[in-house]
Amino acid sequence: MKRTMYFLEQKDMPTHWYNILPDLPEPLPPVLHPGRGDAVTPDDLAPLFPMALIMQEFSPDSYIEIPEEVQEVYSTWRPTVLHRAYALEKSLDTPAKIYYKYEGTSPPGSHKPNTAVAQAYYNKKEGIKRIATETGAGQWGSSLAYGCSLFGLECKVYMVKISYNQKPYRRLMMNTWGATCVASPSPDTKAGRDMLAKDPDCPGSLGLAISEAVEDAVSREDTHYSLGSVLNHVLLHQTIIGQEAMTQMEMADAYPDIIVGCIGGGSNFAGIFLPFIKDKITGKKPDLRIINVEPESCPTLTKGLYAYDFGDVACMTPLLKMFTLGHEFIPPPVHAGGLRYHGMAPIICHLHALGLLEARAVPQLATFEAGVQFARTEGIISAPETNHAIRVTIDEALKCKESGEAKTILLAHSGHGHFDLAAYDAYLSGKLEDYKYPEEKVKEALAHLPKVS
Amino acid sequence: MKRTMYFLEQKDMPTHWYNILPDLPEPLPPVLHPGRGDAVTPDDLAPLFPMALIMQEFSPDSYIEIPEEVQEVYSTWRPTVLHRAYALEKSLDTPAKIYYKYEGTSPPGSHKPNTAVAQAYYNKKEGIKRIATETGAGQWGSSLAYGCSLFGLECKVYMVKISYNQKPYRRLMMNTWGATCVASPSPDTKAGRDMLAKDPDCPGSLGLAISEAVEDAVSREDTHYSLGSVLNHVLLHQTIIGQEAMTQMEMADAYPDIIVGCIGGGSNFAGIFLPFIKDKITGKKPDLRIINVEPESCPTLTKGLYAYDFGDVACMTPLLKMFTLGHEFIPPPVHAGGLRYHGMAPIICHLHALGLLEARAVPQLATFEAGVQFARTEGIISAPETNHAIRVTIDEALKCKESGEAKTILLAHSGHGHFDLAAYDAYLSGKLEDYKYPEEKVKEALAHLPKVS
Repeated sequence: MKRTMYFLEQKDMPTHWYNILPDLPEPLPPVLHPGRGDAVTPDDLAPLFPMALIMQEFSPDSYIEIPEEVQEVYSTWRPTVLHRAYALEKSLDTPAKIYYKYEGTSPPGSHKPNTAVAQAYYNKKEGIKRIATETGAGQWGSSLAYGCSLFGLECKVYMVKISYNQKPYRRLMMNTWGATCVASPSPDTKAGRDMLAKDPDCPGSLGLAISEAVEDAVSREDTHYSLGSVLNHVLLHQTIIGQEAMTQMEMADAYPDIIVGCIGGGSNFAGIFLPFIKDKITGKKPDLRIINVEPESCPTLTKGLYAYDFGDVACMTPLLKMFTLGHEFIPPPVHAGGLRYHGMAPIICHLHALGLLEARAVPQLATFEAGVQFARTEGIISAPETNHAIRVTIDEALKCKESGEAKTILLAHSGHGHFDLAAYDAYLSGKLEDYKYPEEKVKEALAHLPKVS
Repeated sequence: MKRTMYFLEQKDMPTHWYNILPDLPEPLPPVLHPGRGDAVTPDDLAPLFPMALIMQEFSPDSYIEIPEEVQEVYSTWRPTVLHRAYALEKSLDTPAKIYYKYEGTSPPGSHKPNTAVAQAYYNKKEGIKRIATETGAGQWGSSLAYGCSLFGLECKVYMVKISYNQKPYRRLMMNTWGATCVASPSPDTKAGRDMLAKDPDCPGSLGLAISEAVEDAVSREDTHYSLGSVLNHVLLHQTIIGQEAMTQMEMADAYPDIIVGCIGGGSNFAGIFLPFIKDKITGKKPDLRIINVEPESCPTLTKGLYAYDFGDVACMTPLLKMFTLGHEFIPPPVHAGGLRYHGMAPIICHLHALGLLEARAVPQLATFEAGVQFARTEGIISAPETNHAIRVTIDEALKCKESGEAKTILLAHSGHGHFDLAAYDAYLSGKLEDYKYPEEKVKEALAHLPKVS
C-alpha cells in the first residue's frame, strides 16, 4: 500500500525554534516608536509582553530552545502528520507530487496554539496572572484560551461583536477552556465605553478590539497583552511546523520544488517556509519557489505599499515596515477572516522585498471550489483561509499536468473548517460572491500612512 | 520528555478485521424473521445490503481481509494515535496510567467512517449506485456521505427534522461531501407523506427516518440501505481500532486492567474491546475488566430486558435478541444523541449475558463535568457521548488514588465535540439538567415487546 502519512516520533520532535533573523541576507528594518520616531527598545515593549518574548523579537541566535514545559504541551498533538495527497493527485490526473503538513489536529484546530502555548508559558513564568487579547473570528482567542487554561492563567478575550454574535461556537470553545470572552465594544474599557456611548449598536472591528485589549493590559499590573501573528516571536514559535516538515520530507525522500501557503498576518506560512528558505538564501536550493497566497479582496503583498505603518486601526502599536493596504483599510467581509488584515509580518515583507518570495491573489469562489475538491478527495474540510493555499496548489498541479513535470509541492495546511460550514453552504447553494479589489478604498487608506522621517 | 503519543506506522496497520463470532464461548442467538419467526437467511437481507456484508454478518472466519481500496482510504487518517493522558493523570493526582485511543481525527470526526467507507465500497462493488440511510444528530449521515463521495455513490440521508433544524452543521458537512440530506418526515416517501398529512409539524424520530430510508432502498433497484451500528458487520469493521490499540499498548509495554467506553448501538466500544476480550475468553487475561457506559436516562444494559425486539420504532427490521428498553421507548433528549437507542448490538448483549462485561449508567451533568476536566488538561473537547466514558475513566482513576493501585486504563475516545459546543455552553452556564430514568415509560414500552414463540 502507498504511504500517505509520515509520522514523526516524539523523540524526534524539534527541541528548538529556528530564528531566521541572523540568516537574513540584509537585516530587518527596525521597528519604530510612533512618538519618538526612533527604534523601539525592549523597555518600550515591557508593559505589554514578558521580557523573554521581547528578547526573542530581537534575538541574534539561530536556534532558541523550546522550554520543556512547552514541549510537553506540544507533545499532546505534535509532531503533526505530513500527508501525501494521492487521492487529490489522482482526481487531478497530475504527475505532481503533493504533500501537505496538517495543523488541524491541535485542540483548537489550527497552527495558532504553537505560539499561544509558548506565550502563556513565558507570561506565567514572569509572574503574570492574566492575559488580554483580541480576536476576530475566534481562532486566535480560542487558542490563547487553551494555552492559558493549561498554565492556570486567566484569559480575557475581546471578540469583535459581529463575530461574537454570528459565530458562537468559537466563543463557546473559549468558555470551555475557562476564558472570559466579551463582545467588543464592551463596557469593560474606556475605549469600549466611549464607542458604546457614541454608537450603542456598533458592530465592532479588530482595531477597536485591539484597543480594548491593550488598554486592559496596560491598566492592570497583573495583566499582559498577546498577539497571534505578525511579530517575529510569533513566527519563531511557528517554525516547529517547518522543521518537522523538513524531516518528514526527508523520510519521504523528497524536497519541495514549490511551497504554498495562505497569508493573513503570515505566521502559519512563515512557520513552514522559514526553515526551508535558508536553503534558498545559502544557494543550496536556489530554485525553491515559495508562493504566498492572499485574497484578491485584501491583496497586501500583491498590491500593497512597502512602507512604515501601524499594526492596528487605532494607531496604538509601534510602526512596522511592511507591505500594507493602509491601517484604515477595512477589507471586504470574505469568509477567510484570518486573511483580512491590512498589513503583513515584517519578516515576510522583507523577504518579499528581497525577491525571495512569490505572491498570488485569488478570488473567494475559486478558493471554495478548491476546498470542496479537497474535501471530496482527501476528506478534510479545510478552513476558508487554507482553501486559498489549496487553490494555488491545485493550479500548480494542473500546470504540471500540462507540462508533464512531476514537481513536488508542499502545501501548508493551517487547519480544519468545522466552524466554517455556513460558508461552504453559501458556496454550494450559489449564494457566495466574489469581492472586487476595493482600489479606491485602498488609495484613500494609503493616503493616511504615518509620516516617517 | 515523556512519550504521550504512540504512532503506528502505516505498514503496520491491520490488514484484516477481527471477527469475534467463532471465538464466542456460546453461539450468538439467531436473528429472527419478524413474519415467519424463524432465523433470517442471507436472501432475506439481500434487498437491503450487498451480499459481501450479509456474509460478514454470519461469517465463521476469525479474520476477514480489508479490501485494498478500503485500506487505502483508511490510510488517509489511520492508524489513529494512542495517547497517554499524563496531563489528566496529573490533575487527578492518581497513580493510574490512562491511555486513550482517539478516533476524532477522521474527516467526519469519529469512528463512524471505519464502517461507512467499507459499506460504501462493498455496495459500489456490487453495482449499487445509491445508498439511503437515516441519521439522528448527523454523525452517521456525515460519515456515510464521506464514504459515498470517495466511491462515487449517491447518498440520500433522512435526518430527523428536529436535528435537521437545530444542528445545521452536520447537514452542511453532508452537502459538502455531495450527499442529499432531507428533513424527515419528508415528502419523498410514502411513510413521510403519510406522517406529514397527519401532522405537518411532526418533529420526526429516528424510527420514522429508518422507515423512510428503508422504503427508499427497497423501492429502487439501484439503491441499498445502510446502518451505522448494532449489526455484526458494523462491529467487525470497527475492530481495526482495537487491533491498532493492542499493538500500540504493546509499544507502551502495557496491557489494560480496565477498558472503558460509551455504548449507544455499541459499535465503537466493541471495535476497541473485541480484540482484547479474546484474551479474557481464552483465560489469558481473566481479570480484564470491560466497562460499558450508558446514560442514566437510557440504561439499556443496566436496566433493560434481554429479549427479542425490533431494531426500530416502526417494526420494519428483523428481530434481534438484545438488552432492550422496548422499541417504543423514546429516550429523554440528552445531548449524547448517539447513546439514545432503546437496544444494543447483539454481540455486546450476548457477551454481557455471559458475564464477560460490566455496565454502568451515569447522569448527564457528571459527564460534562468530566468532559470539561478533560478539555482543560488533555486539550480535546470531546463528544457528549465520549464524555460518558471519560466520566467512568476518571472515577476509576480516583479509586486508584484511594487504593494506591497503579492500574492501567484504556479509554475508547470516539470523537470530538466540535459540533456540540452548545451543550457545553448549557453546562457551563448552569442550564443543563439531569434526566431521571423514565421507569414508567420503559415499563410501558417493555409491555409491547414482540411475541416470539
